[in-house]
Amino acid sequence: MNKNVHTFLGCDATYEEADIVIFGAPFDATTSFRPGTRFASSVMRNESFGLETYSPYQDVDLSDMRIFDSGDIELPFGNVEKALAMIKNHTAQILHDHKRPCMIGGEHLVTLGAFQAIYERYPDVVVLHFDAHCDLRDEYLGEKLSHACVLRRIWELVGDDRIYQFGIRSGEKSEFMFAKQHTHMYPFDVKDVADVVKNLFEKDVYITLDLDVLDPSIFPGTGTPEAGGVSFKELQESISKLYGLHIVGMDINELSPSYDHSGVSTAVANKVLREVCIASRRKDYE
Amino acid sequence: MNKNVHTFLGCDATYEEADIVIFGAPFDATTSFRPGTRFASSVMRNESFGLETYSPYQDVDLSDMRIFDSGDIELPFGNVEKALAMIKNHTAQILHDHKRPCMIGGEHLVTLGAFQAIYERYPDVVVLHFDAHCDLRDEYLGEKLSHACVLRRIWELVGDDRIYQFGIRSGEKSEFMFAKQHTHMYPFDVKDVADVVKNLFEKDVYITLDLDVLDPSIFPGTGTPEAGGVSFKELQESISKLYGLHIVGMDINELSPSYDHSGVSTAVANKVLREVCIASRRKDYE
Amino acid sequence: MNKNVHTFLGCDATYEEADIVIFGAPFDATTSFRPGTRFASSVMRNESFGLETYSPYQDVDLSDMRIFDSGDIELPFGNVEKALAMIKNHTAQILHDHKRPCMIGGEHLVTLGAFQAIYERYPDVVVLHFDAHCDLRDEYLGEKLSHACVLRRIWELVGDDRIYQFGIRSGEKSEFMFAKQHTHMYPFDVKDVADVVKNLFEKDVYITLDLDVLDPSIFPGTGTPEAGGVSFKELQESISKLYGLHIVGMDINELSPSYDHSGVSTAVANKVLREVCIASRRKDYE
Amino acid sequence: MNKNVHTFLGCDATYEEADIVIFGAPFDATTSFRPGTRFASSVMRNESFGLETYSPYQDVDLSDMRIFDSGDIELPFGNVEKALAMIKNHTAQILHDHKRPCMIGGEHLVTLGAFQAIYERYPDVVVLHFDAHCDLRDEYLGEKLSHACVLRRIWELVGDDRIYQFGIRSGEKSEFMFAKQHTHMYPFDVKDVADVVKNLFEKDVYITLDLDVLDPSIFPGTGTPEAGGVSFKELQESISKLYGLHIVGMDINELSPSYDHSGVSTAVANKVLREVCIASRRKDYE
Amino acid sequence: MNKNVHTFLGCDATYEEADIVIFGAPFDATTSFRPGTRFASSVMRNESFGLETYSPYQDVDLSDMRIFDSGDIELPFGNVEKALAMIKNHTAQILHDHKRPCMIGGEHLVTLGAFQAIYERYPDVVVLHFDAHCDLRDEYLGEKLSHACVLRRIWELVGDDRIYQFGIRSGEKSEFMFAKQHTHMYPFDVKDVADVVKNLFEKDVYITLDLDVLDPSIFPGTGTPEAGGVSFKELQESISKLYGLHIVGMDINELSPSYDHSGVSTAVANKVLREVCIASRRKDYE
Amino acid sequence: MNKNVHTFLGCDATYEEADIVIFGAPFDATTSFRPGTRFASSVMRNESFGLETYSPYQDVDLSDMRIFDSGDIELPFGNVEKALAMIKNHTAQILHDHKRPCMIGGEHLVTLGAFQAIYERYPDVVVLHFDAHCDLRDEYLGEKLSHACVLRRIWELVGDDRIYQFGIRSGEKSEFMFAKQHTHMYPFDVKDVADVVKNLFEKDVYITLDLDVLDPSIFPGTGTPEAGGVSFKELQESISKLYGLHIVGMDINELSPSYDHSGVSTAVANKVLREVCIASRRKDYE
Repeated sequence: MNKNVHTFLGCDATYEEADIVIFGAPFDATTSFRPGTRFASSVMRNESFGLETYSPYQDVDLSDMRIFDSGDIELPFGNVEKALAMIKNHTAQILHDHKRPCMIGGEHLVTLGAFQAIYERYPDVVVLHFDAHCDLRDEYLGEKLSHACVLRRIWELVGDDRIYQFGIRSGEKSEFMFAKQHTHMYPFDVKDVADVVKNLFEKDVYITLDLDVLDPSIFPGTGTPEAGGVSFKELQESISKLYGLHIVGMDINELSPSYDHSGVSTAVANKVLREVCIASRRKDYE
Repeated sequence: MNKNVHTFLGCDATYEEADIVIFGAPFDATTSFRPGTRFASSVMRNESFGLETYSPYQDVDLSDMRIFDSGDIELPFGNVEKALAMIKNHTAQILHDHKRPCMIGGEHLVTLGAFQAIYERYPDVVVLHFDAHCDLRDEYLGEKLSHACVLRRIWELVGDDRIYQFGIRSGEKSEFMFAKQHTHMYPFDVKDVADVVKNLFEKDVYITLDLDVLDPSIFPGTGTPEAGGVSFKELQESISKLYGLHIVGMDINELSPSYDHSGVSTAVANKVLREVCIASRRKDYE
Repeated sequence: MNKNVHTFLGCDATYEEADIVIFGAPFDATTSFRPGTRFASSVMRNESFGLETYSPYQDVDLSDMRIFDSGDIELPFGNVEKALAMIKNHTAQILHDHKRPCMIGGEHLVTLGAFQAIYERYPDVVVLHFDAHCDLRDEYLGEKLSHACVLRRIWELVGDDRIYQFGIRSGEKSEFMFAKQHTHMYPFDVKDVADVVKNLFEKDVYITLDLDVLDPSIFPGTGTPEAGGVSFKELQESISKLYGLHIVGMDINELSPSYDHSGVSTAVANKVLREVCIASRRKDYE
Repeated sequence: MNKNVHTFLGCDATYEEADIVIFGAPFDATTSFRPGTRFASSVMRNESFGLETYSPYQDVDLSDMRIFDSGDIELPFGNVEKALAMIKNHTAQILHDHKRPCMIGGEHLVTLGAFQAIYERYPDVVVLHFDAHCDLRDEYLGEKLSHACVLRRIWELVGDDRIYQFGIRSGEKSEFMFAKQHTHMYPFDVKDVADVVKNLFEKDVYITLDLDVLDPSIFPGTGTPEAGGVSFKELQESISKLYGLHIVGMDINELSPSYDHSGVSTAVANKVLREVCIASRRKDYE
Repeated sequence: MNKNVHTFLGCDATYEEADIVIFGAPFDATTSFRPGTRFASSVMRNESFGLETYSPYQDVDLSDMRIFDSGDIELPFGNVEKALAMIKNHTAQILHDHKRPCMIGGEHLVTLGAFQAIYERYPDVVVLHFDAHCDLRDEYLGEKLSHACVLRRIWELVGDDRIYQFGIRSGEKSEFMFAKQHTHMYPFDVKDVADVVKNLFEKDVYITLDLDVLDPSIFPGTGTPEAGGVSFKELQESISKLYGLHIVGMDINELSPSYDHSGVSTAVANKVLREVCIASRRKDYE
Repeated sequence: MNKNVHTFLGCDATYEEADIVIFGAPFDATTSFRPGTRFASSVMRNESFGLETYSPYQDVDLSDMRIFDSGDIELPFGNVEKALAMIKNHTAQILHDHKRPCMIGGEHLVTLGAFQAIYERYPDVVVLHFDAHCDLRDEYLGEKLSHACVLRRIWELVGDDRIYQFGIRSGEKSEFMFAKQHTHMYPFDVKDVADVVKNLFEKDVYITLDLDVLDPSIFPGTGTPEAGGVSFKELQESISKLYGLHIVGMDINELSPSYDHSGVSTAVANKVLREVCIASRRKDYE
């Protein structure tokens, strides 16, 4: 008899043959309002079997792609630097083996760990950032390593004009002013993704998708729900536009299952994961 | 003193005078993901008193129609054939008495029982199918009598080009391919209902409405929530277009109250029931 | 050490310097379906710290305005007249001190108490009413002082053509007929607010906003959820149009936290409160 | 076909043949903390089918008794006097027809209406009161007709030494002092019921059972949960001791289904109802 | 990198070295009241990491035992015979390999499948049955293969005086009468376990533990909660008494996570599983 | 008009006149399983108004004591050392002003901050520790400052035989062995409190009460529910025995409102707080 292997739906490749490696980063230590994203990857795996592998939107079946699920990293509680280092190392290993990482947060700060590895390998990478929040503070309650600062930390690595932000609708005034000078911000919705993408086909691209870019009507299960977000249809359409980009890594984050009593947020998170993975397929896949 | 009679809001006709007969089919034995639709009709009755009988959309009052609520059929647990036979018999009795059945599921498989009676009486009937899922599998985990196969079973009765499917956004690739050959499928939304209806005024029409055609933002209380659905407004507008059709029966199904913590799904289900009943009124009603 | 002062986010003015005075009216005695709005103001205060004070929609920061939170009035249970009198007195005091009241219900009937004080001071006031329900019944189950009658009671004060109703989608047929004769009703959505406002810049205006004007997908936490409502974006856009009006008072009501398991309804209520307060700022504020 | 008759489990007698008449009193207007008991009788009926009719504790089957369920009284919202009068009239009718009333609250104040009818017919009646709270205040927030005053109002009718109180563990100091002078109070548990009952076999007895006498571990679904209550086993044992008394009426109250997420409180309420009805059977029943 | 292996806490043995083999049987097709036990084993695995492996009650650490978790059997929906056959086969394989099965239900009917394999190998086996319900009906709503009949089916195999039932407090009168003639029933509590066990040390023993033997205060997450059950302490003490028996297999069943909003039921289920596994250790283990 | 002052029920003293100073420590950064205790003090304040100030158990009214509520300390997210230092400073200030601190956690680690201040002022202090868990690990996942280590850290300050532990029922084997050598541990229940207290009347005593010492049936709202705990009655009785001790400070902790759907856990926490404060009254109070 076999051990109980438990992966995301349709992630049946071996590590060796895999193109994409999914892993969970169960970490929420700097969450300021409602914690719980640490449970996201585990709950998403459980619930993924309520989903079909086939996307009628992109007419591709997830099970035709080569994806490996390496499970969750066992992160320490309350040691932010150490947790980020472990995430960076895991990502670097995947990149070293010529595969692409797809991380499931956790709070948004986990992106910093993964991105540090991405940046070392792809120093010219640009970042596509979907979110309700700017995440551009220099510090939050005195801390530099906070979910509210993660894009600011990434900006410190890549510099001006390398971050594209979509769907943003919450932040301090100073963050919006920072964005005007240093990033490309498309607030409130995601309809400009198609146009932005057109100019990025030559670039290495990293996708970081905070699921709270979705309206809380369809995604209530998150720490800081912000009304006025995009519908799943709008998000799905913009994700479809990503196809053809040279995507070198991606993450989706901020599902907090404790606030997802109906299970709808988890179901949506899995559907977004499916669509993002499919959109990231290489042209030569077909 | 009188016994405690408990009906849907506004269903105050006697059986003899009734045009429409509502009944519940509390059955969910083949539900593959999250069971619980067996409770739908009972909870809907209880909550229907939070609704107004008057529809400002169609400018008609439900209490002006002649509707009788015959309660729920007492179905056995785990005996699929027997349950479907009981549903068929109940429906046949209603049709025999020159009334129109309006069934409240239960899982979608209950439609097969009701439709068998409809088909015997109206062999040329066409089917309008609102759903998130194709429901066109030949079998599901080895079972032919499954909610995932119900439209396939109906197709086996009526044949090609007699089923119109709206709002579909989930299924296996093979189901979408089957639909291209054998049914009229309008995926993702319901905006084509108006055009389709124009060509059906001479036909006998059966309506089967899986409530998960609605987006899970407004209808979380269902077994397999599929993001990307239609809004209530969109559904209501397409329902209004049904007026004038020769509707010979209808059902709405797949409310699972256990996942409806806020009660919103049940409230929506009742509002859809009101709008469908009103839209099905005969021209000579006015 | 200091006592634990607990106010809405960003309401840091002293009473003396305040322009707007927020207070809670925890009352739900005439609620006919699902009670619980009595808890709204308290829960909203607690949760307001998950919100930013800055509105990127109106580019104004709430903390730059002068708002005082005077807490909740301690209302008796089950004595409707006395409760309304207490609300009226509290409102009158605020008006007497040349400030503007912003009341947090409670059920919608609380508006009557506040409005009586408004009307005495501003007899030419017009009312902008956002709601899912007409609230125009003459009586409800024999009671004149009911949430279902509150706009009818206000109409008895102000007379014809002084009430503008937006988003209405539920009521008895007779209420819709009453509206045709006596109020300006714009049913189903709020897109006409911009046009209506253009003609009211010379008027004193009172805003009463029943949060169930929002679709229950984004606002499930209310007593009588009515599908088919407006999105937060649509409501926010119409609120932004109010800027420039001579707003003499306002209330938002009908949040019922007991049905808001995910906390999304409360978060939305706070965001609406922020937007309404900012939109009501005086031109000379800038 | 028949209308949908909906009764408590096992209540299948006609009114004419019935010994006990169950009815619901859906009223919670004076509830001071968490409202919602208005839904109790309806939810209890729905859930009663999860219970067996046979009591292994008392070795009697509920379906062997002659019980009629007359449904819920339609009470007005917010008119306390009128609601109590309607409850009194309904009870008086049952008594007039030589049957015994069994009322399902609602908040505890409903007992006053029923008891007024009982008292007129049985002026020497004694009251057995199970509760977490004294309910002996003269007034509560200025109101005499409040759930917190219901036993005080009853005491005004019957006078000293006619009320026996069990399980009490919450109240103002003055209420406990009042009890010392005017009632028989057995605080904290119900173990003295057997002894008390021995002296009451010659009396007419009314039972009023506030379900919050149970510990909130087993009965969380109530407005004011008070830890330190009795277990179901303890309550069941004391109920069994009531057999043989000349019980002229009874009520159970204060289930608030909105706070009963697991359904356990409702299941317990139904089991208590079964046990109380069976314990009240007349000796000649056997 | 490794696949994501997901086992119960402390079940780290290989199949070859294992003494006990845990597996899940996610089946609830005949559940008559509230379905959902199909999710139990999966949720229990996820939550098992909130538990310590060490039992201070029995002073043994679970990780010192040799336990293998073979995951869940993939059972069909709605085909009762086939599901039971698959469970029987899985159990027979474990027995054939000289290991002991520990099954996690699912509804109680799954015990029949496992027990058929047990009975074939150990024809003299006696059964210790912990439950709130008799489960002794000959048929339920016309079905012989129902959770309500499972001990009756087992009795048909083993005959009189081979079944010991503890904690029973619900059933039809006829079931209690059947028990008097054919089984050893110790209703209402588990305090007689110690005495019963003394006479069974020479026997092969199968343990079937329906978790609803626990009081719903500590175990609300089940389909048919029955107040009046035993506390965890009482159950734990009786489990400890099992040590020394020649236990040939065991199952625990009827956790329904959908009704376990707080997670307490799942935590208790895991703790019972830990205690049962430890109590079943062989004497030569030490 | 006044600012909205928000205190625990009955805490109406000024700081100057106060004997006890309550404050909240909203911190849960090292919580390993289910976070959320950060919300405890705020939710407890809100819900405290459902409680009576009078304790019939101890026959004392909380409002007769002199208690000041200084609100919650604003602690940083994810900086454990800084948070503990802030808690220590706040406690030291209270002690300096000759008052006694009563801290509301937060996770149990907050006790370390408060106790450091206590220990500096009262170097001979003994600790009474109520808990389900030993909390005696030297480190947890590599961290010394963890909720799972808090009593070990305190032991490092006070040394052997100065810590008394009650109700413990979970931990690693090594923790129980450590306790045998270094602390006084009374596992599983609290019935020995009375005897222990008799020998401590000459001592300075600190009380730290992890609410999960209660059984999860009555206290589900906590991060790591451990079945087999004490009832409220048992805890209340042992608290009453503390009267007469020279209590120099106290804390109660580990309420996690996110898992307290029914509100019962919060109600119990407040009742425990009331009983502890009353039991800590000085003899000369009377």
